[in-house]
Amino acid sequence: MSARFSFEIVADDAATAARSGILHTAHGDVPTPVFMPVATAATVKALPHEWLESLDARMVLANTYHLYLRPGPETIHRCGGLHRFMAWDRALLTDSGGYQIYSHRDLRRITPEGVHFQSHLDGSSHFLTPESVIDIQHVLSSDIAMVLDDCTPYPCSFADAERSMELSVQWARRCAERWRISADGARALFGIVQGGVYPGLRTRSAEAMVELGFEGIAVGGLSVGEPKSAMFEVLELTLPLLPSCRPRYLMGVGTPRDIVRSVALGVDMFDCVLPTRNARNGCLFTSEGRILIKNACYAGDERPLDTACRCLTCRRYSRAYLRHLFMSGEHLSAILNTMHNVSFYLDMMKEIREAIASKAFGKWLECMEKWPE
Amino acid sequence: MSARFSFEIVADDAATAARSGILHTAHGDVPTPVFMPVATAATVKALPHEWLESLDARMVLANTYHLYLRPGPETIHRCGGLHRFMAWDRALLTDSGGYQIYSHRDLRRITPEGVHFQSHLDGSSHFLTPESVIDIQHVLSSDIAMVLDDCTPYPCSFADAERSMELSVQWARRCAERWRISADGARALFGIVQGGVYPGLRTRSAEAMVELGFEGIAVGGLSVGEPKSAMFEVLELTLPLLPSCRPRYLMGVGTPRDIVRSVALGVDMFDCVLPTRNARNGCLFTSEGRILIKNACYAGDERPLDTACRCLTCRRYSRAYLRHLFMSGEHLSAILNTMHNVSFYLDMMKEIREAIASKAFGKWLECMEKWPE
Repeated sequence: MSARFSFEIVADDAATAARSGILHTAHGDVPTPVFMPVATAATVKALPHEWLESLDARMVLANTYHLYLRPGPETIHRCGGLHRFMAWDRALLTDSGGYQIYSHRDLRRITPEGVHFQSHLDGSSHFLTPESVIDIQHVLSSDIAMVLDDCTPYPCSFADAERSMELSVQWARRCAERWRISADGARALFGIVQGGVYPGLRTRSAEAMVELGFEGIAVGGLSVGEPKSAMFEVLELTLPLLPSCRPRYLMGVGTPRDIVRSVALGVDMFDCVLPTRNARNGCLFTSEGRILIKNACYAGDERPLDTACRCLTCRRYSRAYLRHLFMSGEHLSAILNTMHNVSFYLDMMKEIREAIASKAFGKWLECMEKWPE
Repeated sequence: MSARFSFEIVADDAATAARSGILHTAHGDVPTPVFMPVATAATVKALPHEWLESLDARMVLANTYHLYLRPGPETIHRCGGLHRFMAWDRALLTDSGGYQIYSHRDLRRITPEGVHFQSHLDGSSHFLTPESVIDIQHVLSSDIAMVLDDCTPYPCSFADAERSMELSVQWARRCAERWRISADGARALFGIVQGGVYPGLRTRSAEAMVELGFEGIAVGGLSVGEPKSAMFEVLELTLPLLPSCRPRYLMGVGTPRDIVRSVALGVDMFDCVLPTRNARNGCLFTSEGRILIKNACYAGDERPLDTACRCLTCRRYSRAYLRHLFMSGEHLSAILNTMHNVSFYLDMMKEIREAIASKAFGKWLECMEKWPE
């Protein structure tokens, strides 16, 4: 844990704002642009660590809110931090829980001091503050921690979005102060830009985050129901306001095509439940579009899911067998489907990095239709 | 598929009836005594084929009844048989469905001709005969097929057990006749001894099965609620009536200790859902007894499940993490627990074979208490 966290840009695309780089962490290097599979409860659902490693996944995202409720920070502390608890020695980013508190609206009450909420597991009462969220993430010892933020739904009035954004800025400042007490440079804290779809609010939020000097800055509060065009307008406005030498993280996004477009605007990091959740629902990404594996046409189909894919699922199993497993509700359905979808995302990111390195991403971007929406 | 099915005995224990051997199949050699993990719907629940192979599992058991209902023999035929359908090129045994028809008592009506039953999946009506069960298993192309049998519950009157046993003998004869039409020697058909807990009935059934000249003979209708002592009395009576040169298969049994005792009586083959079902319920076999992983005492326990075990689960993960996965209802809980329990069973069988080969099984049997009941 002696290495300092840092971000290094290794290539810029010629025609777009895309860049490739390396996040240097105490748990290994993470080439960017990176997609982080979501490991909410300290496991990427239905995917063994061994298989994640075989896909060369370098960083996964775990969730502070979920892990705070179960197994609880005391247990993880006793087991030597989250890496050791979950037996994962590559990089970890922990979400702060802001989004989870946002998505359980009926169970929480927000005050300037922090968030009162009831556990979605057992109804027990809890109070989280910007300071306690930092303290919990210190216990987890994730390589990248996130500030506590307040997230607005879509649509949201200007007044509400402004109040919420200002609260997020206050909380970010308190997080940064708390972080400074024990920061050793090995781990990083990222700020989060909020402000709904209002350009003025996004600008003010971005300026505040830059001023607070975070190691990286995320764009949050997107992909919450707004039109795609609004999401990209916010990104086009916000990204140029962020220091180009720091990593930029677009939270909770998205489809393969969203990711390709966002990389072109200069985003370095992504996370999304889409590949893993879709896999469990039998919705599979392929180089020729999405496949709903339950469809009867696959019942006797001996082809692999995607002939262009070299993942373990595609190398060995037929669509017919995958459909059978799905229809039978077998665990192996979730396992093999998740393996494929995560492989699809990670392969895509690798291709993106290679295109940027060869200054060809702009050209490559033109055939973006190859990626599923 | 040119190799002939055969069974070779390679060692006899000095002090017991235990023996070790090799089942030569068209899909590889299977050292005995063997435990076959149960792959009811063409997958060992929650265990990827790759991991089964890493445990050196040589044969698994799939279920004719389940596969007949879903995906149906037409689909499996179109995909080139069960091995190819499920992408498993090691040996397969298919149960005939007799036991499943037995366990769905309220959905079936038995006549001398065959079994009328309703699908437990969608209520549709079906009729299976000894002949059709053989035909379906020809389509599946399993390395070992089983005759259709009728199984009685415990307790059961002598009259009912006798009627049922005689029906099973008639059905076995019809299966053997149907089998002869297309048998090429590459695959084997096994008979099944029935007769409840009645020595006279078991004897008559065993004699009939021997006379029909099956490649192997199973003992069925045990572990259906009778006392352990009754089960072992039946085994002690029945096994000596079977040709010693042919494999003997005890269906649906059992605990580690049951298996050790049965090997001592001369059983060569076993299957049971216990390791896989228990794994999903968080009940784990270890060299020091069973562990219920949900127990609070494991919440901060950094030790592996079983320090004597070298399986993937025990090499990497702590009890604390396994408990967390179980409490969170994560797929990875079923995956890692199943990996461990199946590894426990297969390691035990390997130790048993080695003990027999060194003529030391009798002595080894004395410390049988090391195996969980």
